[in-house]
Amino acid sequence: MASGKCVFCEILAGRLPAEVVYRDESCIALLDAFPVTRGHLLLIPHLHAQHIEELPAQTVTHLFRLGAEFSSALRKNKEIPATNLMLNNGKAANQHVPHVHLHVVPRRNGDSLWVIWRFFTRFFNPLSYLGRKRRMARDAAYVRNLLDGVRAN
Amino acid sequence: MASGKCVFCEILAGRLPAEVVYRDESCIALLDAFPVTRGHLLLIPHLHAQHIEELPAQTVTHLFRLGAEFSSALRKNKEIPATNLMLNNGKAANQHVPHVHLHVVPRRNGDSLWVIWRFFTRFFNPLSYLGRKRRMARDAAYVRNLLDGVRAN
Repeated sequence: MASGKCVFCEILAGRLPAEVVYRDESCIALLDAFPVTRGHLLLIPHLHAQHIEELPAQTVTHLFRLGAEFSSALRKNKEIPATNLMLNNGKAANQHVPHVHLHVVPRRNGDSLWVIWRFFTRFFNPLSYLGRKRRMARDAAYVRNLLDGVRAN
Repeated sequence: MASGKCVFCEILAGRLPAEVVYRDESCIALLDAFPVTRGHLLLIPHLHAQHIEELPAQTVTHLFRLGAEFSSALRKNKEIPATNLMLNNGKAANQHVPHVHLHVVPRRNGDSLWVIWRFFTRFFNPLSYLGRKRRMARDAAYVRNLLDGVRAN
């Protein structure tokens, strides 16, 4: 079902680079290239579908269970007391890539204004692009360390 | 595990009123009293826990599957091409009631500015309180009609 025009399908096929921090038989997790906060992850099913309800039930279950598991792993770090799990289901809901992806956003105390700022500016801010490759590699190492207990199943 | 101070536990126990649009053995769905958009729902497990990872795996699975099912049912209405599914997992992630709840937000074409406005003002806008009871009863009827195909299981 992979579409040649879908950026996530291209990443899944290894034709586009990404900082993948987790991979199993039905999902991968990678760093959002325009993170709202440090460690912002996208959980992506291998199957190409735009809307969550177009996926098989077991994939839906696995995706969200993994989201909860990631949240738990991230929250073991004292710096991350909370997370947002968010799925934008359709273009009118601000889904920018038409392939299901669950956002897992680490939240730190007092970061609400920063989150709002990033939410509105992350695609337009020149700083989002400056030194991105190095920053992403650093953040991927940070996240891999936090997710150390989460194993593919 | 119900806490006398938890507003959702009070609703679940029938001690506080709410517009409940769905109920099964492990979850209820009710209208958000401060909706971001018309038909904004909260999916709430009967078990009291603040964080998603404190719930049994089958409750997590059921909650999110139901979220996907609700999304599908809402999106059958042409007026609602998309939804946001959002779980704020912890106080630092803007979780206002410390009892797990999954937001299901119907989205309509071109409503992004409205959503942003409501997101910031919904608790403070006097119009949020004016005629609320009647508006909620009307919106509950609207949502019940859309969710007609979703059955407790």
